[in-house]
Amino acid sequence: MQKNYQQQTLGILGGGQLGRMLIQSAIDYNLEVHILDPDPNAPCKYLSNNFVNGDLKDFEAVYNFGKNCDVISIEIEHVNTEALLRLEEEGKKVFPQPHIIALIQDKRSQKQFYLDQGIPTSPFILTENKEEVKRNAEFLPAVNKLGKEGYDGRGVQMMRNADDLEKAFDAPGLLEKLIDFDKELAVIVSRNEAGEVKSFPSVECAFHPEHNLVEFLFSPANISPEVDAKARELAEEVIQKLDMVGLLAVEMFLTKDGELLVNEIAPRPHNSGHHTIEANYTSQFEQHLRSIMGMPLGDTALLCPAAMVNLLGEDGFTGEAIVEGMDEALKEKGVYLHLYGKKITKPFRKMGHVTILADEPSQLKEKAERIKELIKIKA
Amino acid sequence: MQKNYQQQTLGILGGGQLGRMLIQSAIDYNLEVHILDPDPNAPCKYLSNNFVNGDLKDFEAVYNFGKNCDVISIEIEHVNTEALLRLEEEGKKVFPQPHIIALIQDKRSQKQFYLDQGIPTSPFILTENKEEVKRNAEFLPAVNKLGKEGYDGRGVQMMRNADDLEKAFDAPGLLEKLIDFDKELAVIVSRNEAGEVKSFPSVECAFHPEHNLVEFLFSPANISPEVDAKARELAEEVIQKLDMVGLLAVEMFLTKDGELLVNEIAPRPHNSGHHTIEANYTSQFEQHLRSIMGMPLGDTALLCPAAMVNLLGEDGFTGEAIVEGMDEALKEKGVYLHLYGKKITKPFRKMGHVTILADEPSQLKEKAERIKELIKIKA
Repeated sequence: MQKNYQQQTLGILGGGQLGRMLIQSAIDYNLEVHILDPDPNAPCKYLSNNFVNGDLKDFEAVYNFGKNCDVISIEIEHVNTEALLRLEEEGKKVFPQPHIIALIQDKRSQKQFYLDQGIPTSPFILTENKEEVKRNAEFLPAVNKLGKEGYDGRGVQMMRNADDLEKAFDAPGLLEKLIDFDKELAVIVSRNEAGEVKSFPSVECAFHPEHNLVEFLFSPANISPEVDAKARELAEEVIQKLDMVGLLAVEMFLTKDGELLVNEIAPRPHNSGHHTIEANYTSQFEQHLRSIMGMPLGDTALLCPAAMVNLLGEDGFTGEAIVEGMDEALKEKGVYLHLYGKKITKPFRKMGHVTILADEPSQLKEKAERIKELIKIKA
Repeated sequence: MQKNYQQQTLGILGGGQLGRMLIQSAIDYNLEVHILDPDPNAPCKYLSNNFVNGDLKDFEAVYNFGKNCDVISIEIEHVNTEALLRLEEEGKKVFPQPHIIALIQDKRSQKQFYLDQGIPTSPFILTENKEEVKRNAEFLPAVNKLGKEGYDGRGVQMMRNADDLEKAFDAPGLLEKLIDFDKELAVIVSRNEAGEVKSFPSVECAFHPEHNLVEFLFSPANISPEVDAKARELAEEVIQKLDMVGLLAVEMFLTKDGELLVNEIAPRPHNSGHHTIEANYTSQFEQHLRSIMGMPLGDTALLCPAAMVNLLGEDGFTGEAIVEGMDEALKEKGVYLHLYGKKITKPFRKMGHVTILADEPSQLKEKAERIKELIKIKA
């Protein structure tokens, strides 16, 4: 007799869009999903078996929430890991494991981990405050990152030359050597308790020039099969060296001389895997569930070439969101809208995404640009 | 400025598996979904913005539920249509239209409609009671159907010869000439308020020999492109002659001499369209939403050949459901489990379904049979 997944309660820390898409997938497995989120109107509010309003950084809130669950996971890494460690000690399954969340939460320990484990990454200097950053003018051009709390482009800034040093973060952080890369790639990889590891095909991320958010994503990446294989092997190496159970997004630079460097990792479903809902045999959300619930991992092959566009709130609009241009976009074959259930739009807030399928990878860019121009989130 | 679908509340009569899969799709459009269902533990209970426990046949229950919604639709046709007519008169959008639900609810008026509109269907005799059925021994072999309330194989029985007449239904019903068909096909078609009509490719239904429920479904059907085109045209003709807004499943017989006869229709998402979630560009659930919410209809093309297997409760087991063989099945590429959130299994209860993708249609049957043997719902 197989174990019955239906009898296990899954608790997710965070009830945003990632939790929402995770629930869409969990429905098919009859999983009972509990959600903890500080926003009383979080996107998951009406979709979970039990929605708890509470602070993800608060020990008591996280611990009390987790006590009522069998398996606990995250959709955001900025959570109280002490409470998760306690739950783990008390026999709960917490995936990804709390010490790995703690390691990844801090970009300083993340970088140190790559260095210690021989994982290729850009050169860096750890800095404790603004003064320390300023002492490293000769290391520029570099990226100055806050150790903790960075998210969606916050906590990251460019230091091109000594003039930029004045805006350096005055808190523990790091300076990373600016990489003159050819492409930014991402590989999503997962691992279950049995040690099975599967990676998705590499995707290519095109960032918005100003807002440091993924603007377009293309799958497959426009790289050789050899580079794809190397990127996937690197992602698999990272999850194995972490000894992690769950889903891990590995962002990489492909340098101009063909080297792959790990940039950042996120131990959860990720913006760079949204296209997998329609474009791959298994979606990243289902794969996350499979990995943490002890199921066999799903096949990751691409069914159809895809692009993904984030729908950000238009600059200059704050208030109740209105989606413009939906009808025009939805007339096209292979265009999939995902709205995140956020009532209020703000400039550059992630309000949704669109996945775009095409018969040939060469058609993706033009189609994605056209769809992006059509759909606007205003107020 | 486009209208904002997010600001409209959608009420669904029925909160079973069809409502559940509809909600999975509605999430992507930020639709506020209200559900009315007589079962306090209906599969949609934890997934709707507002779950109302009430009788679908009760005027007051349906009317009061509908008053709080902007658009009202169904996932089961056995509902109080008088209340829906009242809501329609009061300006609510009710799709499918109440008079069409009433027409389809009664298999007698359904058949009369085909006859009146010149839609090909099997010969039939309307009967008021058991005595009238018995007077038509010369019409056998035939199928004796109850006019109303038949569902999932209930209310339908075979009358092969005069010996079977004793079990005839003693209520208004009909006798349909038994058709010596080559295949049973189904076409799902939709129409929006603007009059746009789109049909999905024909699927082939293989029924369970004993339980009169779809056992396997194959898409594409193993028929010529000409027969597929003819079947789709026929389905489009039916929805147009009904002047219906919404999604309509049209079940047909393909006779041994190549004729298509409409068997039954259902004005909602249907078991014969479950594979569209993974296998087609647009799923039947999204298409239902698009049609009733006034969006453009989605492309219906098949992305990948697919089979669908219903997961019925095993005979001999009643009680809290346990899914056996899941892991073995989920190891395979292109196998998608959909459980319906029903805690209690009963013999032949629809507990879920599995969609199976394959590169070639010729591989589907063997793969579907293998998966069906693996997954068992017991207690």
